[in-house]
Amino acid sequence: MLQRTEMQGMNQNPGELMRGQARLFGAVEAGGTKFICAVGDESGALHAVSRFPTADPDSTLARVIDYFKVDCDDFTPAALGVACFGPVILERQSANYGFIGKTPKAGWSNTDVAARLAREFSCPVGFDTDVNAAALAEHRWGAGRDTRNLVYLTVGTGIGGGVLIEGAPLHGLMHPEIGHIYPRRHELDSNFAGVCPFHGDCLEGLASGPAILARTGSELEHLDAAHVQWEIEADYLGQLCAQLVLTVSPQRIIMGGGVMAERLFPLLRQRTLHWLGGYIDRREILSRIERYIVPPALSARAGVLGALCLAVDAGTRR
Amino acid sequence: MLQRTEMQGMNQNPGELMRGQARLFGAVEAGGTKFICAVGDESGALHAVSRFPTADPDSTLARVIDYFKVDCDDFTPAALGVACFGPVILERQSANYGFIGKTPKAGWSNTDVAARLAREFSCPVGFDTDVNAAALAEHRWGAGRDTRNLVYLTVGTGIGGGVLIEGAPLHGLMHPEIGHIYPRRHELDSNFAGVCPFHGDCLEGLASGPAILARTGSELEHLDAAHVQWEIEADYLGQLCAQLVLTVSPQRIIMGGGVMAERLFPLLRQRTLHWLGGYIDRREILSRIERYIVPPALSARAGVLGALCLAVDAGTRR
Repeated sequence: MLQRTEMQGMNQNPGELMRGQARLFGAVEAGGTKFICAVGDESGALHAVSRFPTADPDSTLARVIDYFKVDCDDFTPAALGVACFGPVILERQSANYGFIGKTPKAGWSNTDVAARLAREFSCPVGFDTDVNAAALAEHRWGAGRDTRNLVYLTVGTGIGGGVLIEGAPLHGLMHPEIGHIYPRRHELDSNFAGVCPFHGDCLEGLASGPAILARTGSELEHLDAAHVQWEIEADYLGQLCAQLVLTVSPQRIIMGGGVMAERLFPLLRQRTLHWLGGYIDRREILSRIERYIVPPALSARAGVLGALCLAVDAGTRR
Repeated sequence: MLQRTEMQGMNQNPGELMRGQARLFGAVEAGGTKFICAVGDESGALHAVSRFPTADPDSTLARVIDYFKVDCDDFTPAALGVACFGPVILERQSANYGFIGKTPKAGWSNTDVAARLAREFSCPVGFDTDVNAAALAEHRWGAGRDTRNLVYLTVGTGIGGGVLIEGAPLHGLMHPEIGHIYPRRHELDSNFAGVCPFHGDCLEGLASGPAILARTGSELEHLDAAHVQWEIEADYLGQLCAQLVLTVSPQRIIMGGGVMAERLFPLLRQRTLHWLGGYIDRREILSRIERYIVPPALSARAGVLGALCLAVDAGTRR
């Protein structure tokens, strides 16, 4: 349904669609590789979508502003939402609220994103991590609609996780950085040093797309089904899911990203059960794990729809 | 201050104290080894406290009821709170809400606790894990007063953790079972199988009091400061704290329990920093970790005061 609406919207001039509609929002998925901008409404329908590669902060943010002001015919959003690559500053009392923090992405450390867009459009701006936003979207419109607490994981160039508690993104001291926990080394993977620049063989260093590529020279999906890399990857991701059950206790774990081939799911579910060792006596895990650890329902649109959730929430707060 | 009030209260007849006071609550810390019952008020003052060993469910719960009805002169609580050893059933829509679930504690699996006490006293009953309750108490009156999100850990006979998010205990699918995550094995501890009946060498299997006793024949605090067990224990607990920073993102970690000797804190804080590898760029961790990972302020009273928090909250809900 969402897809159909999106397609309808994309065939029309966004400026036309806005006229006569009470509340339209701007959504920005700010990724390290690409930005996606969209206009959408509270139902999750996207009326216009644009993608462009991430360049330096000034020109990239100028392009975001141009998209809404020029391409969308001087669109006036009820609110904006930004689902941003991290780490990001989410403490509202911080002078740097809405900034990207110290990031390996060249040129982007300490970049003001939220306040800059708020000034430009004179509207509320919702701001969170890309994965917290995707978790919100899957909760509202996707694979987590029947839950209150869930984790959204992306396994691709990096490994990240967003956590929703009682429907709200978890922040706390900062925000989760789930990709950097340390799994136990798989016995058939003891010689690989890992690729994380901070930790070497943390989860991201061992189980991200670049880690698989460094070991095998290939992406996971192109490896033979009998290749040991499938077993290794499933084990590391099973450890991740087990750790999350034990620490965050989600009602569902949603796993997306470029590495998450369909045939990985049954393998990693088995490894999750192995690492939990029967300790969590819940039928959701013991009897229905295929409904507990699931792919996203919104696929690649989870990020921009998450940004739309942030915008809707920012526009209706108080 | 709390301690003084408790002492005053314990020298007086609880029945007398209740007269003329508007709202007094019953608090029950239900532990696997001992139960603590108390009468208290919304300020955290305990006016009467009684401890007795945990026996079978029927006689133990009968003793709880007798304490309030007989010892406390037919005390009528505004509400009761039960901080319970687990696992426990916390889903309000479950037919078994307020039960202890499948537990290794002989005879206690599938025991109704909350509904039984609610029927007996005709009052609201707040019910949660012992560690979630202790987290509440430390948040309200102890070492977490200036936070919204915190983790309370106990390292003793077992290892458990309670998580507070925006001041409320985290439940989700069940509740956290933090003690059963798997740390990486310390290189000087590769031959010890671990003592967890479910997992062998999970954290509880490697770093609980019984694990230390199994390795060394001694409690940690009686081992020489140069004994390698200090280093091993600090490393495992440092991994625990690092994992929690990355998954739950607490604003403080409070660590209590019989194993948590004072000299363990600086050692495990260093190991936490080691495992985080500079990735979490927050001054709370990088510059002030001695204020980030701290002992409880309420010491051994965190549990019963947590039960009091549950009672107060149950009595003021809606």
